[in-house]
Amino acid sequence: MHCLPENLRVVLVEPLGPINVGSVARLCENFGVQEICLVTPRCDVLSFEARQMALRGQVLLEKAQQFGSLLEAVADCSRVVATCGRIDHGSAIPLKSSEQSLQWLLNGIDTGPTALVFGREDRGLTNEELLIANQVLTLDISSDYCSLNLSHAVAIVLYELQRLSSPRQKVDSESLPSALANPLQLEAFLSDARDLLLDVGFLLEHTANARMVKIKSLIHRSAARPEEVALLRGVIRQIRWAINSPRS
Amino acid sequence: MHCLPENLRVVLVEPLGPINVGSVARLCENFGVQEICLVTPRCDVLSFEARQMALRGQVLLEKAQQFGSLLEAVADCSRVVATCGRIDHGSAIPLKSSEQSLQWLLNGIDTGPTALVFGREDRGLTNEELLIANQVLTLDISSDYCSLNLSHAVAIVLYELQRLSSPRQKVDSESLPSALANPLQLEAFLSDARDLLLDVGFLLEHTANARMVKIKSLIHRSAARPEEVALLRGVIRQIRWAINSPRS
Repeated sequence: MHCLPENLRVVLVEPLGPINVGSVARLCENFGVQEICLVTPRCDVLSFEARQMALRGQVLLEKAQQFGSLLEAVADCSRVVATCGRIDHGSAIPLKSSEQSLQWLLNGIDTGPTALVFGREDRGLTNEELLIANQVLTLDISSDYCSLNLSHAVAIVLYELQRLSSPRQKVDSESLPSALANPLQLEAFLSDARDLLLDVGFLLEHTANARMVKIKSLIHRSAARPEEVALLRGVIRQIRWAINSPRS
Repeated sequence: MHCLPENLRVVLVEPLGPINVGSVARLCENFGVQEICLVTPRCDVLSFEARQMALRGQVLLEKAQQFGSLLEAVADCSRVVATCGRIDHGSAIPLKSSEQSLQWLLNGIDTGPTALVFGREDRGLTNEELLIANQVLTLDISSDYCSLNLSHAVAIVLYELQRLSSPRQKVDSESLPSALANPLQLEAFLSDARDLLLDVGFLLEHTANARMVKIKSLIHRSAARPEEVALLRGVIRQIRWAINSPRS
């Protein structure tokens, strides 16, 4: 037996069903997850139904923090893995197997808080939310009907994470950077980039989002470090200065 | 993706909760299990609650056969694996890991019907029932509170079974570029970028190489596609145009 890392956070975005929320709390208690974060829940997460399902996970539920957006809930995280059903992902966003992305999460577990993000029962996560994550995991479900109930997806992901985190399995295949740029740093860079690209006329307001998705996707895939994001922001500042300075 | 074997049966012994029964039916539909057997259920398995949880698994639920005892439900099976929480098993009964017992089940899948047996929510399976099975599986749960909800145990076992039944080398689900930008395209982009960054004063001739190495490293790690490199070159062209155009 091997406990899951202490700095792992389970994030539920806009959960709709109290039974699901309660079930997830019980699962977190089962697997030793110590923190649940809720982004704008659409149900009473402390209702009778939720508590009834949570059983010994009630304490986790009571101390669960609530946030207004996913970005706020994962702002301090060094690695974020979001989950996604096969059907509704944007083609610009690469999907990883549970083994790939969970192993990657574990490889960085000592670099800071990490988050596993689960979407709405009815609509999953938006593409914008998926792009806040460093990696997007999809569970390999064999049938035509691959829509898992939220809490069952959580059960499978936590079990898989525990399986991979047991010493026998741990293989560090990737010599990845020790610390990735966190979601806030990336957002700040992307916001600067967007402003510049609008100013120089590369982006137009009505098509900006689609093109920025492509740039976000690139920067996520590159697994940029804080100092690299700082370098890119430096480029933007300097270009801005060049545009505004008088012609020689 | 790989479907579970056709002759696999999920058996629930005296299930108490209609939500659990419905959830298990949905899971069976998710994983392509084609038969559910119920041993003396203690709830209305076709109630509104059960159907609501089953969703597309309702058909499986409607055609589920009911039996008076576990022995009858698995009488024709060539291999039977029962599940058991850590706490309540008799010491005379050896426990196997999920990997051991599920692999054993799969090895015999061509020899006849096989069954996965799950016990009561409150008391699991009796020792007598455990002894009907060829093997007894226990899920390795890390915390002090290892009592899983019934349907979550089913979710984990079916996912694990599917994982083990897939061909060893899992298909990479990553929708990564079929074609990466080739070295010539990358060089052309990097050369453009270097010229621009020299012009705007971000690079100085004598330090340019060191900084460009960092940018090269980022772009290589992102595994950029040809159209993405084209997009970035478009950005550079547009910035150049903005720098050279007269102030408004």
